[in-house]
Amino acid sequence: MELHDAAQLHEEHCHTGSERKSHHSEKTKSNLTARLNRIEGQIRGVKAMIEKDTYCDDVLNQIAAIQSALNSVGKMLLEHHLNSCVIERIQEGDNEVVKELMITMNKLIK
Amino acid sequence: MELHDAAQLHEEHCHTGSERKSHHSEKTKSNLTARLNRIEGQIRGVKAMIEKDTYCDDVLNQIAAIQSALNSVGKMLLEHHLNSCVIERIQEGDNEVVKELMITMNKLIK
Amino acid sequence: MELHDAAQLHEEHCHTGSERKSHHSEKTKSNLTARLNRIEGQIRGVKAMIEKDTYCDDVLNQIAAIQSALNSVGKMLLEHHLNSCVIERIQEGDNEVVKELMITMNKLIK
Amino acid sequence: MELHDAAQLHEEHCHTGSERKSHHSEKTKSNLTARLNRIEGQIRGVKAMIEKDTYCDDVLNQIAAIQSALNSVGKMLLEHHLNSCVIERIQEGDNEVVKELMITMNKLIK
Repeated sequence: MELHDAAQLHEEHCHTGSERKSHHSEKTKSNLTARLNRIEGQIRGVKAMIEKDTYCDDVLNQIAAIQSALNSVGKMLLEHHLNSCVIERIQEGDNEVVKELMITMNKLIK
Repeated sequence: MELHDAAQLHEEHCHTGSERKSHHSEKTKSNLTARLNRIEGQIRGVKAMIEKDTYCDDVLNQIAAIQSALNSVGKMLLEHHLNSCVIERIQEGDNEVVKELMITMNKLIK
Repeated sequence: MELHDAAQLHEEHCHTGSERKSHHSEKTKSNLTARLNRIEGQIRGVKAMIEKDTYCDDVLNQIAAIQSALNSVGKMLLEHHLNSCVIERIQEGDNEVVKELMITMNKLIK
Repeated sequence: MELHDAAQLHEEHCHTGSERKSHHSEKTKSNLTARLNRIEGQIRGVKAMIEKDTYCDDVLNQIAAIQSALNSVGKMLLEHHLNSCVIERIQEGDNEVVKELMITMNKLIK
């Protein structure tokens, strides 16, 4: 199989060999990574706020902002997962993906 | 005022001069910081998962775990805030703290 | 004690005798009751949707709307509680109200 | 087509003619309805609590219980929807269901 086809296979399929993989485009990956970099910075910011005895209400508002940013990352991933692996595995007749998805939804829907 | 009293004053009061401050014990501070360090590490972990095309469902479960950990930090801070600055300011007749608290609660209670 | 004073006592205090009471104005009560009537109607609407085999996605959207309406009622009650009984009991030196409040916050902040 | 097959067709398919329908078993329907009846009763209970000036903290705890019960109904419906219409429409090549599902998830994941 040409290198290109192998990459293409990896690109399109949710699993190479036994291990399940995702297949984000580089654009999606850099978007997700940029958002997570910002969140990581915000977490460090909260640590500094606590170290400097910043007023709790201000820290709580910063935590609410981080939760909202993390929620957006989760929804981006969910959307990508639904549109790739979930569709793919259902079309292959592998409905086990739905049971797996529901276990995750139970954690995200509080 | 003895240095000790000055520190005590800072320790007990929600505001030194015009700026509002919190006053966590060293024990609370290290507890909060340890939790935030772990969360920071988990965020870096999610970035690595995305970089390595880890299966989305696994990444989503990791995000749910981080949200839960962040929620605990928020609740610790809220409890501390209620027991220190909120009580203190209400006892000083400064009920403005309740309006401020409700604005923050609106963001935390989704 | 004049009837008026007795009502006044009831109106202002979080507890008459051993039992804790709230003291909403009639305006607040009718606002809360109107919202709850609407929610009750929406719940009956969901039952009818399920009975008629309405498409699940439509029912899920209706449930999300009810959750949001119920959330607003909760926040109205919380605001009223903070501005009345919580302030009152803290001013009376009864800080136990903060522990009680935190137990409830732990259930509302998911 | 035999009447039985027609009913079977209705039973298995997410849409009869132009309108989308769900197809719960009678067992699922009565389970959902029983839960919604309880929630409806709890809403009426909250109205009575407010009418009798029940202490706000107690009412807030009751609202948290209702939110949790409503959340369970939502998750039951989601699970059923994923296992029936979502699988069915994806297998028919109608991936539009994923876009529709994501819009609903955005409302349920707060």
